[in-house]
Amino acid sequence: MNILIKNVLLNGSATDIFIENGTIREISPQCSRGADKVIDGSGKAALTSLINGHTHAAMTLFRGFADDMPLKSWLEDKIWVLEKKLTPDDVYWGARLACLEMIKNGITVFNDMYWHWEATARAVRDMNIRGFISAVFIDMFDNAEGREQIARNRDLYARSREYAPHVTFTFGPHAIYTVSRESLEWMRDFSAENDILIHMHLSETENESVFSRKTYGTSPTAFLDSLGILSGRFIGCHGCMLDENDAAILGSRGARLVHVPVSNLKLAAEKIFPHRLVQEAGIPYCFGTDGCASNNHLDILETMKFASLLAKFSSSDPTMLPARQTFEMGTRTAADIFRLGRWSIEEGSSPDIMLIDLDRPEFVPNFELYSDMVYATNGSAVDTVICRGEVVMEGRIVPGEEEIMARAGEIARDLVKR
Amino acid sequence: MNILIKNVLLNGSATDIFIENGTIREISPQCSRGADKVIDGSGKAALTSLINGHTHAAMTLFRGFADDMPLKSWLEDKIWVLEKKLTPDDVYWGARLACLEMIKNGITVFNDMYWHWEATARAVRDMNIRGFISAVFIDMFDNAEGREQIARNRDLYARSREYAPHVTFTFGPHAIYTVSRESLEWMRDFSAENDILIHMHLSETENESVFSRKTYGTSPTAFLDSLGILSGRFIGCHGCMLDENDAAILGSRGARLVHVPVSNLKLAAEKIFPHRLVQEAGIPYCFGTDGCASNNHLDILETMKFASLLAKFSSSDPTMLPARQTFEMGTRTAADIFRLGRWSIEEGSSPDIMLIDLDRPEFVPNFELYSDMVYATNGSAVDTVICRGEVVMEGRIVPGEEEIMARAGEIARDLVKR
Repeated sequence: MNILIKNVLLNGSATDIFIENGTIREISPQCSRGADKVIDGSGKAALTSLINGHTHAAMTLFRGFADDMPLKSWLEDKIWVLEKKLTPDDVYWGARLACLEMIKNGITVFNDMYWHWEATARAVRDMNIRGFISAVFIDMFDNAEGREQIARNRDLYARSREYAPHVTFTFGPHAIYTVSRESLEWMRDFSAENDILIHMHLSETENESVFSRKTYGTSPTAFLDSLGILSGRFIGCHGCMLDENDAAILGSRGARLVHVPVSNLKLAAEKIFPHRLVQEAGIPYCFGTDGCASNNHLDILETMKFASLLAKFSSSDPTMLPARQTFEMGTRTAADIFRLGRWSIEEGSSPDIMLIDLDRPEFVPNFELYSDMVYATNGSAVDTVICRGEVVMEGRIVPGEEEIMARAGEIARDLVKR
Repeated sequence: MNILIKNVLLNGSATDIFIENGTIREISPQCSRGADKVIDGSGKAALTSLINGHTHAAMTLFRGFADDMPLKSWLEDKIWVLEKKLTPDDVYWGARLACLEMIKNGITVFNDMYWHWEATARAVRDMNIRGFISAVFIDMFDNAEGREQIARNRDLYARSREYAPHVTFTFGPHAIYTVSRESLEWMRDFSAENDILIHMHLSETENESVFSRKTYGTSPTAFLDSLGILSGRFIGCHGCMLDENDAAILGSRGARLVHVPVSNLKLAAEKIFPHRLVQEAGIPYCFGTDGCASNNHLDILETMKFASLLAKFSSSDPTMLPARQTFEMGTRTAADIFRLGRWSIEEGSSPDIMLIDLDRPEFVPNFELYSDMVYATNGSAVDTVICRGEVVMEGRIVPGEEEIMARAGEIARDLVKR
């Protein structure tokens, strides 16, 4: 599959971009190669697509079902009650809705943790984007449950090849207060042997810190380090409560983090992600939306605005997380974390690409594209999305979108009545 | 002018709405009246339009020109340098761009403070929406300058009738550190005699508090109260630094506030608006975007999401500013503050109206419309806007939008080179 994008703005100049099987072969003012698909890029800017570092895709089904509640009763009385009823078919349609929403917002890669792994994997494949998919691993310190989860994860890992190249299997140990030491040690070893990423909630709340101190006598990060599970394969999400010592540990182990600002505000986290500590420790980090029960929108541009502005406020420094750096963290740094190669629009690289419609008031006067992307617009400005060398959205139309919205809506409304 | 909206969702039921010269005459399942204009509301929800409580409209021209800077050098080295060069024609096109952007985001009423009053007033009239427009009043404690500003404001007030009903003249004393006591006293009296709203920055920064303590020996609010300027006509914007005593004073005087969260975060305000204090004092408040140099997007739905989520975080209470309350503050409460009458879709009332396109992934499953409006979507979901009984946007098209974007863009690019 070859794609030729004509006359698109790239770094401020009108350019042609020729893409062959997902790899950029030519960037020039006038490309004369023939292509299977020609896209008119006039009035649009080309940028690498966005990466969602932390979500629970199928939770789109719960959007707006239980807002404005304290975390504990929200989780125990509402979310967990519904989750017990979920079938693989529910998760499949919920995840397709999430993929649709992400494509509409320029996201082609997401990092997921949820129930019914294979349903999400099928959804990602059918939507033709990229998912790093983990099965939620919770054993509640029960040995038998731990063994069952381990067997299930071995099995899913083996079967995950069927979903390549769209899907990459990852481990999803939920958190230190829901997963036993033995299970974490098993994931540590299996992850090292098979080079598997580990996706875990880390230092999200004060309750988690209290549990860790009581149970392990130390912080969640120091406990995980004592198990030897921290490495460049470890991706910790949230990190609100991290202190200087935690940051030093994570930095020295090469671990990575995902900042999830919208969810942290909505659920009234005790603290905000400590950008300065994390940056000083040299920890690469990107951004995540979280699931739709705690955000409720899978729009990484919106998340970037929250992240950048909150960083300025919480650091008392309006120069923190400037627009261009913020955009690059959500694209290039995220691609490093997920090992996607050079995520830049240049000859020889193979990033996913989005075209931004500049014909909107918020792009006037367009002094600085990155500022406009982070501060002035949102995902609705994304016009066209190319993933792995194929067009998945053009002119904001995603094939099959009406069916996805109808089916997911029916399922969600049925679910709350079951 | 009569408008009939057919088959639109209102409070969850498909309904017809008949509007005669801006007043809703009939709401029924099937209205058989003839109308000058019939709108197909299928798949859309009808809501009252949004109100922007604080902005500097023509600053759209500076969008993206100077981000990520400390407030003082941002203002002194960048913004004020450009503002000195502004002509009325610049402000006219900058304000038209702002009106266009606000219409696209469902805003039909805004509260403005800027230079070249008449240029903004013309823009509002030509865009056929509603503006509460003040001329920035700054005398820097210079008597001669104060007298000149007073004369200018008298003159503008007299001429403001030419711009009715689109434009309402208001006073715009910039802040307690830029306006003399004598000028404030004059505005107090003229405002009382002529029933004019007063739009002022209040308790935005620690610097302002320090100035007030040094100069007046008390807080900005207590100083203003000592002048007798606080009343139901007084609208204080920002309010980040307000304390319990300030809130009690404002509450007892019937004053109103506007919360401006995005700008406060971007410029790294020392504190966040004290929702609980303000609510306990019974002070009505709504939301503002601020100007495009410090936001950079005139989208009140985005601002509502920031406001609601920040309120939860800063109060350590996820039940603060729930979705429906937040939406009502940005519509009904705001309409009370600006004396627009009953801002609700019922027979006999005359609100501006927006139609929301529900055929988007973020409105699936649409369990709760207000939650989806505040947490899941943004201004791009607004399909149609009706202001004072006339259609100003339909199917996201605003007549003349291409010219506005082109002219404003040219002016902004020229301005930075002058």
